[in-house]
Amino acid sequence: MQNICDSPLYPIMHPRSVAVVGASNSIANMGATILNNMRAFDFEGEIYPVHPRLKEILGLRAYADPEEIPKVPDLAVIVVPTPVVPQVLESCGKKGVRRAVIVSGGFREAGEPGQKLESDLLSIAGRYGIRFIGPNCIGVVNPGHRFNTTMFPYNAAMNGFIGMVSQSGSFITQMFTHLEKFGLGFSQGISVGNQADIDLAACIDYLGACERTKVIGLYIEGLHRPGNFVRTLKEAAAKKPVVAMYVGGTEAGSRAGHSHTGALSGSDALYNGLFRQCGVIRAYSIEELFDFCWVLGTQPLMEANRVVVFTNSGGPGAAAADAAERAGLYLPPPSTELQEKLLQLVPRTASLKNPIDLTFTRNYEDILNHIPRVLLEDAGTDGILMYFLINAENLSRLIEKLESPLFQTIEAFETYIGELCRQLAQMHRKYGKPLVGSTFSTRSEGAIRLLEDLGIPVLPSPERSARALGALYRYSMMRKRLTDPR
Amino acid sequence: MQNICDSPLYPIMHPRSVAVVGASNSIANMGATILNNMRAFDFEGEIYPVHPRLKEILGLRAYADPEEIPKVPDLAVIVVPTPVVPQVLESCGKKGVRRAVIVSGGFREAGEPGQKLESDLLSIAGRYGIRFIGPNCIGVVNPGHRFNTTMFPYNAAMNGFIGMVSQSGSFITQMFTHLEKFGLGFSQGISVGNQADIDLAACIDYLGACERTKVIGLYIEGLHRPGNFVRTLKEAAAKKPVVAMYVGGTEAGSRAGHSHTGALSGSDALYNGLFRQCGVIRAYSIEELFDFCWVLGTQPLMEANRVVVFTNSGGPGAAAADAAERAGLYLPPPSTELQEKLLQLVPRTASLKNPIDLTFTRNYEDILNHIPRVLLEDAGTDGILMYFLINAENLSRLIEKLESPLFQTIEAFETYIGELCRQLAQMHRKYGKPLVGSTFSTRSEGAIRLLEDLGIPVLPSPERSARALGALYRYSMMRKRLTDPR
Repeated sequence: MQNICDSPLYPIMHPRSVAVVGASNSIANMGATILNNMRAFDFEGEIYPVHPRLKEILGLRAYADPEEIPKVPDLAVIVVPTPVVPQVLESCGKKGVRRAVIVSGGFREAGEPGQKLESDLLSIAGRYGIRFIGPNCIGVVNPGHRFNTTMFPYNAAMNGFIGMVSQSGSFITQMFTHLEKFGLGFSQGISVGNQADIDLAACIDYLGACERTKVIGLYIEGLHRPGNFVRTLKEAAAKKPVVAMYVGGTEAGSRAGHSHTGALSGSDALYNGLFRQCGVIRAYSIEELFDFCWVLGTQPLMEANRVVVFTNSGGPGAAAADAAERAGLYLPPPSTELQEKLLQLVPRTASLKNPIDLTFTRNYEDILNHIPRVLLEDAGTDGILMYFLINAENLSRLIEKLESPLFQTIEAFETYIGELCRQLAQMHRKYGKPLVGSTFSTRSEGAIRLLEDLGIPVLPSPERSARALGALYRYSMMRKRLTDPR
Repeated sequence: MQNICDSPLYPIMHPRSVAVVGASNSIANMGATILNNMRAFDFEGEIYPVHPRLKEILGLRAYADPEEIPKVPDLAVIVVPTPVVPQVLESCGKKGVRRAVIVSGGFREAGEPGQKLESDLLSIAGRYGIRFIGPNCIGVVNPGHRFNTTMFPYNAAMNGFIGMVSQSGSFITQMFTHLEKFGLGFSQGISVGNQADIDLAACIDYLGACERTKVIGLYIEGLHRPGNFVRTLKEAAAKKPVVAMYVGGTEAGSRAGHSHTGALSGSDALYNGLFRQCGVIRAYSIEELFDFCWVLGTQPLMEANRVVVFTNSGGPGAAAADAAERAGLYLPPPSTELQEKLLQLVPRTASLKNPIDLTFTRNYEDILNHIPRVLLEDAGTDGILMYFLINAENLSRLIEKLESPLFQTIEAFETYIGELCRQLAQMHRKYGKPLVGSTFSTRSEGAIRLLEDLGIPVLPSPERSARALGALYRYSMMRKRLTDPR
């Protein structure tokens, strides 16, 4: 695709006016929830609720039928009982609406007669030139356009870099809170449901062209048109990383996917081959998918697999080392030259054998600046795994009672650490090598939050950081092959 | 072991008086941190700081040498520079101290001459009849005794059921915050360091006898005396579940462990065989270790591997189903009888094929009581994986604006949900079958917190809940073999 505006998805993600067909004032009703959350996001366009009887919904004037709306909306979000969907779509078509998100379920995924109803939708859409997402989907979120058709409120601060396409609506909406834990967010989130019209491939094509999307995440239950999918996926993965979770490789996962979105699954071997061919990284859980997206969407590619684990805590260092090797990374023993440089900067009890383990120290300049600089400079190192043991709350309790020559108050400590974190992030950008952190603290720790906001992913465990760096290495090698096919 | 009081560890975990040798008033000093946290936990015994020059430390009278302390302390915590440790231990011996925690590092893990120094410690201890943990460890925490020798403060509310023995101090101390995220806690936490005297086996023996310990967690870098270890482990695993993480099976993990605690590792195959023989469940990350401990420490054993996935969210249901089958569980299609019972309780769009997927509903009585009861009653079901989609914050925003017949305020909703959760927990106890939840919400969600506090583990993702239930099934089968060896 040359221009993102050529995508059938563009008007769905950037409407200037929306009809919400099936809105109401009752909490038991999905349409009411959707309308309320759409408005909570300060969407700047017009919203037209549609309901057969109500005159006013959530303070907005309501219309009995799409055809009664005074303007032609760019998009219709349809959330009405299954049997009514075809006639609503017909009415939208007559009005001149050319894009729809069909939230209602009960189609192909429910067996006959849902299959017949789904065919009806396609022929109505074909007649009017309507392109649509769904049915049986949760819709879309586009934070940059302050647009959200889902049932969950989106935090406007989470204007992220992850473009996600999912056969499950939950893996869009319920990820809002999951991503928030790490300061991440979607650039675009699309729940495709049964893919009667617009399918995974069309969404991948769109996300490949979307500039705010730095990495593409996929949740797949099964494919309808594999040929088209492979071509699109390969093109996208040559431009930006693609991470896919596939649940159809087991008997139970396959059955679940079929009941859920009418998906037709295939064996693990088949999908693994397909992913490898396209340069796609597979994740085996949703947590892993977002871990991988975080690292692949923020870190530069790797030249080779030589990694240093740097820690001031022995156990997490050993766990990272073990997980890194299992993930296909190599921890070389540091060169004599590197060891000599490090020897100036580490406590007497430290180990320099990779992991570089400082053991106990409170010299944060060495931890956060001097040692990372030496490691980033080292020609024998392609990437760094760094464990962060920072606990300001604990430190503040100590500062209250103990003599503290370097910083007398916790505020002074936080200013000092903040400056060191900024310098670390600057250094990291300069050297163009991946640096992946981990910690058992959370984002409520100021230094962790700052590092994350400055582009250094800090994952919630050493093993997860190692696996994500392993995924970056695998993508780096596949990317070379995709872009330089000699 | 017949009586827990016979364990050399008992006086270390339950001292009535402690000398902290190497305490000071400076934040740069590890001994100062330890003393401060020990006091912050309201330890009821006597504390005697020891320092060569200071007369007062953190408001307590300090002594120049252990021999000057007016009473004989039950325990000495030693955190002084490496070369001084032997003479301090000698002085403790002369005083009559018979238990020690040696925090200082720089011994066997640091190569020669540390190895020589470690032998010196053993011969001094032998001469005086001192039993000790360490050197190169973080010490112990025993919430029931309000006793904590580590560098991190322990939240007294976290009086848990997990007994942990670790070759890494970090996997005791830094887990305090990790466990807090889930409302969990240690019953006893022991960092064994170099295991010069008291080793992993002695700790496992102790935890096997500890009544507050419902499950034993192990972090292993390598074993010194495998024979002894196997015997003890087998005995413990016949009494309660044991979950072990082992990092020495890779070249990098093995090297890391050796630098860290002087551990001698072996191949994955060797350790997997050993674990299988003893009935121990292996975890491949620290997160997984605590996930498994949570489920194995709270849930009844399984008769067989037939599991139902119950969800009101399709994607998480499919992900749980896929992960469950990969973890060795079986998702049978529900019997006609079960389907008929469920049909009365589910919305029209629901799927009954296992996963039981309700799709969209706000009928919480069906979700939290009626359907779980039917599943717990079903003779063809050995365990339940249940996904929780609850978001009170979102709901409260809707209640403000929408008509809500069932509950007019969020407080009314929370009272209503709270009662349903209590009934669910009661039912769960009655039927004696494992129920493992998952959610992408956190413990800040009232209903999730309540379920967890009532004994239903709610893991942070569907895949993690499935893997943990798989671990429970494997342990159930091994336990049968261990206790009934026909």
